Amino acid sequence: MTTAELTTYLHEHIPITRGLGARVEHLDDRSVRLVAPLAPNLNHRATAFGGSLSTLAILSGWVLIHAQLLGRDVAGRIVIQRSAFDYAAPVEGDFSATAALPEPQAWNRFLATLQRHHAARVVIHAEVTCGPVVGGRHEGTYAVLRG
Amino acid sequence: MTTAELTTYLHEHIPITRGLGARVEHLDDRSVRLVAPLAPNLNHRATAFGGSLSTLAILSGWVLIHAQLLGRDVAGRIVIQRSAFDYAAPVEGDFSATAALPEPQAWNRFLATLQRHHAARVVIHAEVTCGPVVGGRHEGTYAVLRG
Repeated sequence: MTTAELTTYLHEHIPITRGLGARVEHLDDRSVRLVAPLAPNLNHRATAFGGSLSTLAILSGWVLIHAQLLGRDVAGRIVIQRSAFDYAAPVEGDFSATAALPEPQAWNRFLATLQRHHAARVVIHAEVTCGPVVGGRHEGTYAVLRG
Repeated sequence: MTTAELTTYLHEHIPITRGLGARVEHLDDRSVRLVAPLAPNLNHRATAFGGSLSTLAILSGWVLIHAQLLGRDVAGRIVIQRSAFDYAAPVEGDFSATAALPEPQAWNRFLATLQRHHAARVVIHAEVTCGPVVGGRHEGTYAVLRG
């Protein structure tokens, strides 16, 4: 699946992603980067609204797992179980959320558990940045149920 | 400030709240309840998108502090520092986020610190529900800077 196809999938199935202006900008075999413009995500202080930062980060983890499972021909339902976001600095422009796979050992354990038990859980970290500024860090716990 | 005025404030200053369809439905001297319709917040499984649940919860804590400070004639900038959301159950309809003040001792300590040091931090809990179903629980750490 290309980044354009993933963006279209998000816009069609999770309509608020259109409101956020979220796009999948980059995907490789270990990470994914989503981007969003500042304008629709402004807060009352003319910086990016905290809810938008954490939402883009939640999405980045979801897209990363989704793309990885597609690449392995595994059909599964990805459900977020826990989301934690630490805000580090105000975001004053367009921003991105980059989610990366955990260490190979943890990721392979997740895949093996999913294969064996048809359900598994994985923790994905993502970083929200605006140019060189780190706006915050996200930790998402996602469960996947095969089927 | 009435719930209608608070809703208008949100829609004017945090534009994504219009996309969410968020409204301030109830406000009293200890809590606030925001509501949002399911339709604009759907995910690919026809339940509410996790990012929308946590965003409405973040907003509920913000509105609660905002209304409390207004009621005390305290001008301050409210900044979220940390947000954690535990997803409990799928949300299959319109949903609400209810934020409540902490215990009086903690709240009074926060107000006293804000008075003395012109900055203080408070933890606000909120619950997201859909009818009798608890969709999840939020813990937000908010900092307030006077001025």
